[in-house]
Amino acid sequence: PHAAIGPVLIEALPYIRKFEGKTFVIKYGGAAMKDACLKNSFAQNVTLLRKVGIRIVLVHGGGDAITKTAEKLGITSRFLHGRRVTDKEMISVIQMTLAGKVNQDIVQLISEHGGKAVGVTGLDADTIKALPHPNAETLGLVGEVEQINTAYIDLLCRAGLIPVIAPIGFDDKGNVYNINADDAASSIAIALKAEKLIYVSDVEGIHVGERILKTICKTEAADFIEQGIISGGMIPKVLSAFKTLDSGVGKIHLIDGKATHSLLLEIFTHEGVGTQFIAEQDSDQSQNR
Amino acid sequence: PHAAIGPVLIEALPYIRKFEGKTFVIKYGGAAMKDACLKNSFAQNVTLLRKVGIRIVLVHGGGDAITKTAEKLGITSRFLHGRRVTDKEMISVIQMTLAGKVNQDIVQLISEHGGKAVGVTGLDADTIKALPHPNAETLGLVGEVEQINTAYIDLLCRAGLIPVIAPIGFDDKGNVYNINADDAASSIAIALKAEKLIYVSDVEGIHVGERILKTICKTEAADFIEQGIISGGMIPKVLSAFKTLDSGVGKIHLIDGKATHSLLLEIFTHEGVGTQFIAEQDSDQSQNR
Amino acid sequence: PHAAIGPVLIEALPYIRKFEGKTFVIKYGGAAMKDACLKNSFAQNVTLLRKVGIRIVLVHGGGDAITKTAEKLGITSRFLHGRRVTDKEMISVIQMTLAGKVNQDIVQLISEHGGKAVGVTGLDADTIKALPHPNAETLGLVGEVEQINTAYIDLLCRAGLIPVIAPIGFDDKGNVYNINADDAASSIAIALKAEKLIYVSDVEGIHVGERILKTICKTEAADFIEQGIISGGMIPKVLSAFKTLDSGVGKIHLIDGKATHSLLLEIFTHEGVGTQFIAEQDSDQSQNR
Amino acid sequence: PHAAIGPVLIEALPYIRKFEGKTFVIKYGGAAMKDACLKNSFAQNVTLLRKVGIRIVLVHGGGDAITKTAEKLGITSRFLHGRRVTDKEMISVIQMTLAGKVNQDIVQLISEHGGKAVGVTGLDADTIKALPHPNAETLGLVGEVEQINTAYIDLLCRAGLIPVIAPIGFDDKGNVYNINADDAASSIAIALKAEKLIYVSDVEGIHVGERILKTICKTEAADFIEQGIISGGMIPKVLSAFKTLDSGVGKIHLIDGKATHSLLLEIFTHEGVGTQFIAEQDSDQSQNR
Amino acid sequence: PHAAIGPVLIEALPYIRKFEGKTFVIKYGGAAMKDACLKNSFAQNVTLLRKVGIRIVLVHGGGDAITKTAEKLGITSRFLHGRRVTDKEMISVIQMTLAGKVNQDIVQLISEHGGKAVGVTGLDADTIKALPHPNAETLGLVGEVEQINTAYIDLLCRAGLIPVIAPIGFDDKGNVYNINADDAASSIAIALKAEKLIYVSDVEGIHVGERILKTICKTEAADFIEQGIISGGMIPKVLSAFKTLDSGVGKIHLIDGKATHSLLLEIFTHEGVGTQFIAEQDSDQSQNR
Amino acid sequence: PHAAIGPVLIEALPYIRKFEGKTFVIKYGGAAMKDACLKNSFAQNVTLLRKVGIRIVLVHGGGDAITKTAEKLGITSRFLHGRRVTDKEMISVIQMTLAGKVNQDIVQLISEHGGKAVGVTGLDADTIKALPHPNAETLGLVGEVEQINTAYIDLLCRAGLIPVIAPIGFDDKGNVYNINADDAASSIAIALKAEKLIYVSDVEGIHVGERILKTICKTEAADFIEQGIISGGMIPKVLSAFKTLDSGVGKIHLIDGKATHSLLLEIFTHEGVGTQFIAEQDSDQSQNR
Repeated sequence: PHAAIGPVLIEALPYIRKFEGKTFVIKYGGAAMKDACLKNSFAQNVTLLRKVGIRIVLVHGGGDAITKTAEKLGITSRFLHGRRVTDKEMISVIQMTLAGKVNQDIVQLISEHGGKAVGVTGLDADTIKALPHPNAETLGLVGEVEQINTAYIDLLCRAGLIPVIAPIGFDDKGNVYNINADDAASSIAIALKAEKLIYVSDVEGIHVGERILKTICKTEAADFIEQGIISGGMIPKVLSAFKTLDSGVGKIHLIDGKATHSLLLEIFTHEGVGTQFIAEQDSDQSQNR
Repeated sequence: PHAAIGPVLIEALPYIRKFEGKTFVIKYGGAAMKDACLKNSFAQNVTLLRKVGIRIVLVHGGGDAITKTAEKLGITSRFLHGRRVTDKEMISVIQMTLAGKVNQDIVQLISEHGGKAVGVTGLDADTIKALPHPNAETLGLVGEVEQINTAYIDLLCRAGLIPVIAPIGFDDKGNVYNINADDAASSIAIALKAEKLIYVSDVEGIHVGERILKTICKTEAADFIEQGIISGGMIPKVLSAFKTLDSGVGKIHLIDGKATHSLLLEIFTHEGVGTQFIAEQDSDQSQNR
Repeated sequence: PHAAIGPVLIEALPYIRKFEGKTFVIKYGGAAMKDACLKNSFAQNVTLLRKVGIRIVLVHGGGDAITKTAEKLGITSRFLHGRRVTDKEMISVIQMTLAGKVNQDIVQLISEHGGKAVGVTGLDADTIKALPHPNAETLGLVGEVEQINTAYIDLLCRAGLIPVIAPIGFDDKGNVYNINADDAASSIAIALKAEKLIYVSDVEGIHVGERILKTICKTEAADFIEQGIISGGMIPKVLSAFKTLDSGVGKIHLIDGKATHSLLLEIFTHEGVGTQFIAEQDSDQSQNR
Repeated sequence: PHAAIGPVLIEALPYIRKFEGKTFVIKYGGAAMKDACLKNSFAQNVTLLRKVGIRIVLVHGGGDAITKTAEKLGITSRFLHGRRVTDKEMISVIQMTLAGKVNQDIVQLISEHGGKAVGVTGLDADTIKALPHPNAETLGLVGEVEQINTAYIDLLCRAGLIPVIAPIGFDDKGNVYNINADDAASSIAIALKAEKLIYVSDVEGIHVGERILKTICKTEAADFIEQGIISGGMIPKVLSAFKTLDSGVGKIHLIDGKATHSLLLEIFTHEGVGTQFIAEQDSDQSQNR
Repeated sequence: PHAAIGPVLIEALPYIRKFEGKTFVIKYGGAAMKDACLKNSFAQNVTLLRKVGIRIVLVHGGGDAITKTAEKLGITSRFLHGRRVTDKEMISVIQMTLAGKVNQDIVQLISEHGGKAVGVTGLDADTIKALPHPNAETLGLVGEVEQINTAYIDLLCRAGLIPVIAPIGFDDKGNVYNINADDAASSIAIALKAEKLIYVSDVEGIHVGERILKTICKTEAADFIEQGIISGGMIPKVLSAFKTLDSGVGKIHLIDGKATHSLLLEIFTHEGVGTQFIAEQDSDQSQNR
Repeated sequence: PHAAIGPVLIEALPYIRKFEGKTFVIKYGGAAMKDACLKNSFAQNVTLLRKVGIRIVLVHGGGDAITKTAEKLGITSRFLHGRRVTDKEMISVIQMTLAGKVNQDIVQLISEHGGKAVGVTGLDADTIKALPHPNAETLGLVGEVEQINTAYIDLLCRAGLIPVIAPIGFDDKGNVYNINADDAASSIAIALKAEKLIYVSDVEGIHVGERILKTICKTEAADFIEQGIISGGMIPKVLSAFKTLDSGVGKIHLIDGKATHSLLLEIFTHEGVGTQFIAEQDSDQSQNR
């Protein structure tokens, strides 16, 4: 095994210097947020990344937990085009569940692995200012990000803390909004000029047949969509990733939360394990992570 | 009216310089947390204090709100010697209600008055480490403060933010604890070496007959207790205040949240409106606020 | 009385933050410089302003004192168009009286009220460079400000000291000049980019009939002059104030030194007590001080 | 002449590094303050010393000028044991003459040679706090130094300015005092922990017969006094110098203001031109300046 | 292979944070300094260590090269008890060969791998002050370290440079000395309070039969010597290592320069590849590197 | 002699302030590098200059020493157009002699006079990147400066150290080059934006008949060349000096290393001893050093 260690380190160590002080926004969801074993592995990896000097910002959702709490309170969840219909009562359930419970469980989990995390909602220090969703009439208090005030997140990152962000927004009229976690993560990554935005979910990456693409650029993506290789619900995700890239985020990664240590492998090996989205297929960007 | 303004300013202005950069811990409760008008006045005052450079740390409870949420979920609240019996299910209700709702409502209220507040629980950045209550067998997850890690609160204060703290603690075994808000406020004030710990409640101060004492020292308090002038539930409160004073907090104040601007009057006039607790009746400390 | 205090503070406190670190140049003259009681009140106010973090720069005259010293030395004072005819002998009398006596008396007065003041003449650190007056042939060593070197005044202000400036200038040929105190104050305020230039004199403000104008803008002033409402010796004063405003000073104030605490009232209330000169009647500037 | 320059520089240059940032207090008096040519040479030297980084603090007297002004005002000067009897009227004359005229003339002189000087009296920033002289009953407002507040002088020195100090003191009761300039210089040198205190006067140094002593230590001085070699008015001067030395000033120098450039020669040559007072005759201190 | 990478990184990454900013002194010798392939691997590893923030100080010998140059110049090399007899002519040969050639070849090698190295001799900035060897009479200009002046090495390390040190010393009489490279490395490590002193040579570590000891403490070493398990020339090396440890160096390592990447493996794995010397067998120090 | 000292200091002292923190590059060669007495005087002067705060960078050659070492090794030196033909063997001899011996002797000499010098070659920290000479085919490893990386020299200068630079360069292909010392000094002076580049050699300056020119400007030089007053080998030297001047070096000086203290006299007197090259004959630059 020793024979392997040398090359692994030779490969990994330069990334540490490269990424030191850089910001990674991680959208945390899927199995990695449910399975006890994967949760621990994720928390361990995140803590390690923070300890080698990478600024980690977590964004989480929690739809299932919200539905469960609502049920217990005798409230039925309704969805339109994948967005939860959110009245005054439901936004309270969301605040209680996301900010009060799901968020704090992640904070506690990271603390158990030796990291220092801090729960954040969009209301704290006016962090996420929101607009009503275009379909607000039917969806109610569903919002979209109007502006991310990065001062507070920056403060936490500079202090070595890990912000764990629940995607709840506010507006000047005293309303609280339910915001899609993927969108919030993207907006935060753009506002922070993040080096990477990493989606940890149950999706392994972009498939082309059996193969997972290591790297995909804009032109390739357009071709794959035209050829039907990328299709269905994956299309908006891919388009959104390139939009985020265009807005100044270094790279977007899609990795499989079901594989242990996938986060480390994606970051510290040239090959990676998931798919990274880059602007163009030039040698520098595409040959490494 | 102009004739009055000069002297008011002559009296108030020196306090600003005196308190600039100092820390005030405010335990927020009672009518000031329920009445819409008083809530606004409180949020305005707190924002103003922060803007003239005083470091404000709020600690809040929320027993009524917890009981209400529990009820909706079909859970009965039980109390022993004034402490809520707290099982696993109840601690979840407490987290959701305190951290998810009550806390965020205060954050939002301050934001509406132009301040920048941040919701904090004892789990965030390992801020409140707890021990089980001596009667843990019957009370369950009721805890006492073992240690306050001030680094995170300090960070927020230095950044001009107002930490709004929900009194929830953690231990190394992964337990979450329900902590008494008055005790949490006192421990936090001690750990921060606060200039003042101010209890905003429905109590006007220490009464001697009709009169509210402006200032009370240790010896006087002992006499009043012996003479039965201070009695009943007030005795432990008074003793606890002097204990906090002995642990390094500058002054303890008891003020009436039902009176508009009572916070400003207590801080910026020689007379004040409530009762301040001081170690000894020497001229300097007792003659002003 | 308590009922009044809250609103007074709510009104005054934001000004402190607004003016912290800002520079106020105060031209000190009239009754406030002669009456023992008013002198003390002025020194107290000035000390207080400095203690809440406002940079105070005083400029004083002293014509009466100069005339008296001259008399004792058997020298007759002569004036042309309000300027003192100043030969070599007279400039010595001016230096001795202004820099040696009047200036030091103000320094001592402020010291007695707990402030730290420092006597400054235009010769110190080359602070006031002067040109001969256009009528130098008849007036002699009467000068006009050519340049204010702010380095020394800045140094004093940053150190929390109050510069008390005697309006004496120098040129490269070794001449010393007698400079009008109002003009010196204006030049200093411009050079320091002062937030306010406040004339404390025996004039209550700009009168329109019985009423003192709280605020006057350029257009209004032009109208009043045309209508003869502002007339006589007031016209050049008003024109000069607007010229100073145009040169970058925030606001000019004319206040009555005969009223106790007029300085505090002018600065810390929305209404003020004298007249403030502003560029235009927009809501922000005109509604407050 | 070139042959000489090398060795002169080899000798002088190390002193510059040695004295950079150090404080020299110079008591300025005698012919060097009256003769036009010597005044210019002195101002040039002082400016040069400041420009190579030595902190220069000047202290001046002005007895003759005071007597002259008093005369013009019809006031007779009286002296007791060499101290001027000083009533209220006389202290005004002293303030006007010293602070208003003599001091400002020195400031102007230095300015003409390219230096930046600042006039200072003991009243400015509470710099010289005074006590009444033991013979106050007969002497009136003659004072002794109670305390030197160095903050203001330090501020000026750090800013590259040359404080020119008129020896006038104050007390808490609002009195102003006339202080002996030699004593003021010594107290200031002690308070500033000066590297050197240099008396520029009409005395060439300590004579032993025809010879001027380059260096004198405490033991030698005692011997010379016992042997009558040092005698008369020189005895208190010598004793006072050693007392100042004991209070922490590095060296005391007595140099002849009548010789051009004597200040530079005393500071930048091993031999010097006057007499230096040192604690003991060890090689390091006695062999150089 | 991916399966291995996760654990390797989990193991290695914490060492990076642990060692960031710490100083490693590496004695470079043996095959790693001769074989082209090993030279490159060594230079690559050293550059990598420096890039992840470890302060690297190299010390090298060069006996063979010296002997070769001497031969070409027709000078015979003589040795007594393993030390080279060094006359004036030989010390010139040593300076030329070590400082001029061997040292510069290492600097160039590191430069080719992207590091920035700097050649240093003990004469540069008075870095290595030497004493004559006890057998100076027969050995000539062979010296021992009297003092290491660390200022220059510290300067280079803080600037991210790698000092490459040729073990040549000086004394106050103008002599230059030939110093044993192992001794120089040890003295430098002590003076720098190094975290580690690593001997890269042809020795694999301390053998006990077939097995290489991962860790050895003082008591064990004493036992092994008594039992004859450690014997011969290894005894003084082991004793010297513990002496260095006692003088404040964190750990001493003996690693095999013949194995590729042995430096990385020794530093970034719990097991290591060579032998580390520690004070006592407590869990923390002995279980990891 | 005292009479002379004053004016010498008045002349010299301002130069110290003027040159403090400025960089002087000194090309060291000729008699001043061979004669024991001149060597000591040079080292003393250089140390003194560094101690009064001037950043000194030395560049040296060593052709004679190289030829001698080569001879001893049985290698014949060959020259073409004044450049040494340099094969692989010869470059080793150059490295050994220049970097190992000549350079270290200068370092040691300065150390003996109390300075702190550091040997530097172009290989250290990639300081001198070289290109092959246009005549590389016949000259071999003779190089020209491609780029000076000033970071390392700057680091040394800021730390108060004196870099002593051997003119050896490197390229990216692993070649080492022999570079002309005059050219290296010029390139280094340009890269450092040096205040002065001083050639210490056996040339006294530019002669016009018997007279040495104190100052020469571009136009004058052109005239002298046209008139044949400057001729032969001096022409390229003069042209090169003006080219260096055009590239941003303040002044170029040619001084006689055979005269004791010539370095100090050139720098600290208006007249100087050698010839200075300036762009134009305006009063400021030409009247002083």
